[in-house]
Amino acid sequence: MAPPVTLTALLHGPDQPGLVARVAGWIFERGGNILHADQHRDMEEGIFFQRVEWVPADGARGSDVSSFLAFASSLGMQARVTDSSSRPRVAVFVSKADHCFHDLVLRWRAGEFAGEIAAVVSNHRDMAQATEGYGLAFHHFALDAASKAEVERRQLALLRELGVELVVLARYMQVLSGEFLEKFGRPVINIHHSFLPAFAGGRPYHQAHARGVKLIGATAHYATPDLDEGPIIHQDVARVTHRHGVEDLVRKGRELEKIVLAQAVRWHLDARVLVYGRKTVVFD
Amino acid sequence: MAPPVTLTALLHGPDQPGLVARVAGWIFERGGNILHADQHRDMEEGIFFQRVEWVPADGARGSDVSSFLAFASSLGMQARVTDSSSRPRVAVFVSKADHCFHDLVLRWRAGEFAGEIAAVVSNHRDMAQATEGYGLAFHHFALDAASKAEVERRQLALLRELGVELVVLARYMQVLSGEFLEKFGRPVINIHHSFLPAFAGGRPYHQAHARGVKLIGATAHYATPDLDEGPIIHQDVARVTHRHGVEDLVRKGRELEKIVLAQAVRWHLDARVLVYGRKTVVFD
Amino acid sequence: MAPPVTLTALLHGPDQPGLVARVAGWIFERGGNILHADQHRDMEEGIFFQRVEWVPADGARGSDVSSFLAFASSLGMQARVTDSSSRPRVAVFVSKADHCFHDLVLRWRAGEFAGEIAAVVSNHRDMAQATEGYGLAFHHFALDAASKAEVERRQLALLRELGVELVVLARYMQVLSGEFLEKFGRPVINIHHSFLPAFAGGRPYHQAHARGVKLIGATAHYATPDLDEGPIIHQDVARVTHRHGVEDLVRKGRELEKIVLAQAVRWHLDARVLVYGRKTVVFD
Amino acid sequence: MAPPVTLTALLHGPDQPGLVARVAGWIFERGGNILHADQHRDMEEGIFFQRVEWVPADGARGSDVSSFLAFASSLGMQARVTDSSSRPRVAVFVSKADHCFHDLVLRWRAGEFAGEIAAVVSNHRDMAQATEGYGLAFHHFALDAASKAEVERRQLALLRELGVELVVLARYMQVLSGEFLEKFGRPVINIHHSFLPAFAGGRPYHQAHARGVKLIGATAHYATPDLDEGPIIHQDVARVTHRHGVEDLVRKGRELEKIVLAQAVRWHLDARVLVYGRKTVVFD
Repeated sequence: MAPPVTLTALLHGPDQPGLVARVAGWIFERGGNILHADQHRDMEEGIFFQRVEWVPADGARGSDVSSFLAFASSLGMQARVTDSSSRPRVAVFVSKADHCFHDLVLRWRAGEFAGEIAAVVSNHRDMAQATEGYGLAFHHFALDAASKAEVERRQLALLRELGVELVVLARYMQVLSGEFLEKFGRPVINIHHSFLPAFAGGRPYHQAHARGVKLIGATAHYATPDLDEGPIIHQDVARVTHRHGVEDLVRKGRELEKIVLAQAVRWHLDARVLVYGRKTVVFD
Repeated sequence: MAPPVTLTALLHGPDQPGLVARVAGWIFERGGNILHADQHRDMEEGIFFQRVEWVPADGARGSDVSSFLAFASSLGMQARVTDSSSRPRVAVFVSKADHCFHDLVLRWRAGEFAGEIAAVVSNHRDMAQATEGYGLAFHHFALDAASKAEVERRQLALLRELGVELVVLARYMQVLSGEFLEKFGRPVINIHHSFLPAFAGGRPYHQAHARGVKLIGATAHYATPDLDEGPIIHQDVARVTHRHGVEDLVRKGRELEKIVLAQAVRWHLDARVLVYGRKTVVFD
Repeated sequence: MAPPVTLTALLHGPDQPGLVARVAGWIFERGGNILHADQHRDMEEGIFFQRVEWVPADGARGSDVSSFLAFASSLGMQARVTDSSSRPRVAVFVSKADHCFHDLVLRWRAGEFAGEIAAVVSNHRDMAQATEGYGLAFHHFALDAASKAEVERRQLALLRELGVELVVLARYMQVLSGEFLEKFGRPVINIHHSFLPAFAGGRPYHQAHARGVKLIGATAHYATPDLDEGPIIHQDVARVTHRHGVEDLVRKGRELEKIVLAQAVRWHLDARVLVYGRKTVVFD
Repeated sequence: MAPPVTLTALLHGPDQPGLVARVAGWIFERGGNILHADQHRDMEEGIFFQRVEWVPADGARGSDVSSFLAFASSLGMQARVTDSSSRPRVAVFVSKADHCFHDLVLRWRAGEFAGEIAAVVSNHRDMAQATEGYGLAFHHFALDAASKAEVERRQLALLRELGVELVVLARYMQVLSGEFLEKFGRPVINIHHSFLPAFAGGRPYHQAHARGVKLIGATAHYATPDLDEGPIIHQDVARVTHRHGVEDLVRKGRELEKIVLAQAVRWHLDARVLVYGRKTVVFD
């Protein structure tokens, strides 16, 4: 039997007594049944965060979405509601390194993501054939400093045309402009190949090697105009020793990058990540 | 400002629609404010589990406990409610290995446990002086096969007299009888020095060395009459290589045993562990 | 500049004073330069193990191999010498699960293995197209209880014809007979989806779920006629909670299986693994 | 039977062909037997590093030490030789946080360190009683900005008088001056409560909390005049979530600090750590 279609709300706003009971009561009164509910209070900031997933009453799914948004607003909360039967469209941006690309596509085909890969976008042609071998559309945008603004406009047009709701930068070696991020207006997830905030910027494995660290890391974060400063979704590390040269760090790092990026994308598509300020709440 | 006194309920029973809303509603109607609520459904077994922590209305704390138990019972749920201002009394059982003993006492003194160490019990005198150095009472019970039943009776009498609500076997090298466990009627946490179910029984580090495993482990579990078969609370592992002899495994294992046992005791005292069948739900 | 061609010897035998010096002296006298040398003594068993890698004198490479074997034999040691310019041929055996298959092929194409994938062998046709998409030869052997002995004979003939020096069972859901292993006479690496010796045999994730463990594992080992009892090369674990159903364990386990199997294959092909009894020495 | 007394040399210098053979040959010719030998080449810098441990011929122990140093010098190598029967004297510097202090002393009493704790030094009196309870000498040095230079002179005099060969800063909240480090002329190991180079400087857990990282770390390093920039010996991390406030990070961090510092001290006392530039080679 297929699992029931559910609605999932992510909400946050100023804390006040009774919020858990009110949200639960609202769903119960409309004939819904809560499957999962998880909440968090930031005591210092006085903010309440909640993720709640429920099976709506028969026929109530569409109206529940808009009603819930109004209800949350009446509580002074910001909310987002997703329907488990909808599958957000995702664009994967790549350059030449292909490990995250293959990893994401194979996981998607294995059913690990609650979304659809709608396009692969690249500033190089290296992955055109592999993309098409997977039956996916490949979009090439040659890019240099002079053409960047124009290329970003064309990329934005493509994303809009395809109805893309999430961009994943899978080792895309270009910085998206603040204007691109603002106009796109939807989340962009990036993988940085270090344990941020250590080794922000370029060539992090070279930096790590030079400093003689004993662990290397990878960090998946939402892209913001401040490079490598966006809210962190997930991080992991691997042990290295003096025996590992820069190339070994690169190889071991590929492993981390794949796992960390895929986990961040899975959590995002499962509506488990809430951003506030420069931080995230991850309801895992 | 001191944190407010809270009540924490752990409840479980047959799943039914509306449980989350009903529990939240009950607390809200009585003027309580939910700080944390976490629940889990075992889909295969159709069981609902919840941990909910709330600040009761002024003056309602005592009556809330008994009322909540009656309320949970009316929902067909088993429940346990703890009050954050009460500090359960704990007895630590030891033999000759002292690492878990020192670790537990030092953590207790650092304020890591929501309970009080009320007694140290041992079948040897090795730790008498260290125990008294910490200002704790040391209870020695010489023990052999012939005297075991009699000694257990005296130990039970001591635990009752001291009002002990949790026994921690901190590398206590004696098996408690099923009769002891039943008569004590309260939880007993044991640390087994392997990654159960691998290497149950005696001399697990020797077994691990002989098998040539690449990771060793430690497992904290509730003691049951079936040795090493009780519900697992926490486990962890550490990497070993061919270079590590049995003595190295023992040394590395001490590290794991300390951390795994302390974490299990902390979770238990924070009312985060629910047992069902031979498994646990840990609301961490 | 390309790295120099090196010879790597793995040797082991009864310990005796002066072995390190004698091996180093032998290489030095013949004009070789040791790049890496690592040794281990099993104190209980009195066995000496060594991995030594050196750049031979110009023109001496071929003669060094046979001379070294004779020299090792004169010391009472068993030895194996590999030449970094030779690339052993590998056959990958698969059934229906494809994650380890894709992972191994993509790593091979990324240059992570010191060997060549020469064939993909399967008892199902599911991966025929993907294999050919990678430009590799796919060999299908329909198999049932009645035909097993005959199929194994044909598989052996294929492996011999292709000059295969290593078989990797990448979630191949058939047990190779002792006769097959003996006649093949070369190493076979298997991935078992549990932390052996826990949960040997079938459906290990179901076993792990039923026992309520807090970590799941994967184990890469050399196949022997005793199922799941062969020498362990590598193991790793991942944390799970009560929230993870059997399907989640399977998904998280795929991650472990890929990483653990790939690491074991890489170490094997780099001549870093020495087997003795039911254990391995891994010079990592 | 007691293990034999051994000599361990740590050497490094410009790489040249035949070094492994020459060192092994030198030991062999003098009747010594190599138990362990491990070496590393930094290919980029052209530096050779080696740790070699051997049982000298009867009666040769004393003369081997000086002869080996001369021999290493003739190869252009810097060397240090330690004798397993000597037990370096260690001073532990503490302030008010006591977790690393207790951990180090208990490990020392459990026989985990190849050295002797000769003194506990503090700028506060908080740990005087606990130190004396362990039967150790406690040295209090009241300290303020004005008295710092004078206090350091008295501390140096104490260290010289006690023959201290290693200082361990076990959460000692004072920065030692460059002059102190230079005059002491022996290694000083510090524990920094972050994953360096992230969150150098003060209040690293507050910094980590503000940045919203998903892992916290601890770093043991040799102290240098450049604060938090010394060569890293060991690092480890632990996972945190949005649920962890600064106090939780502090508590989880204590765990890391204890383990990371103890491991670094153990490796140092086992003559496993070689410093070059701002990095270490750890022969573990």
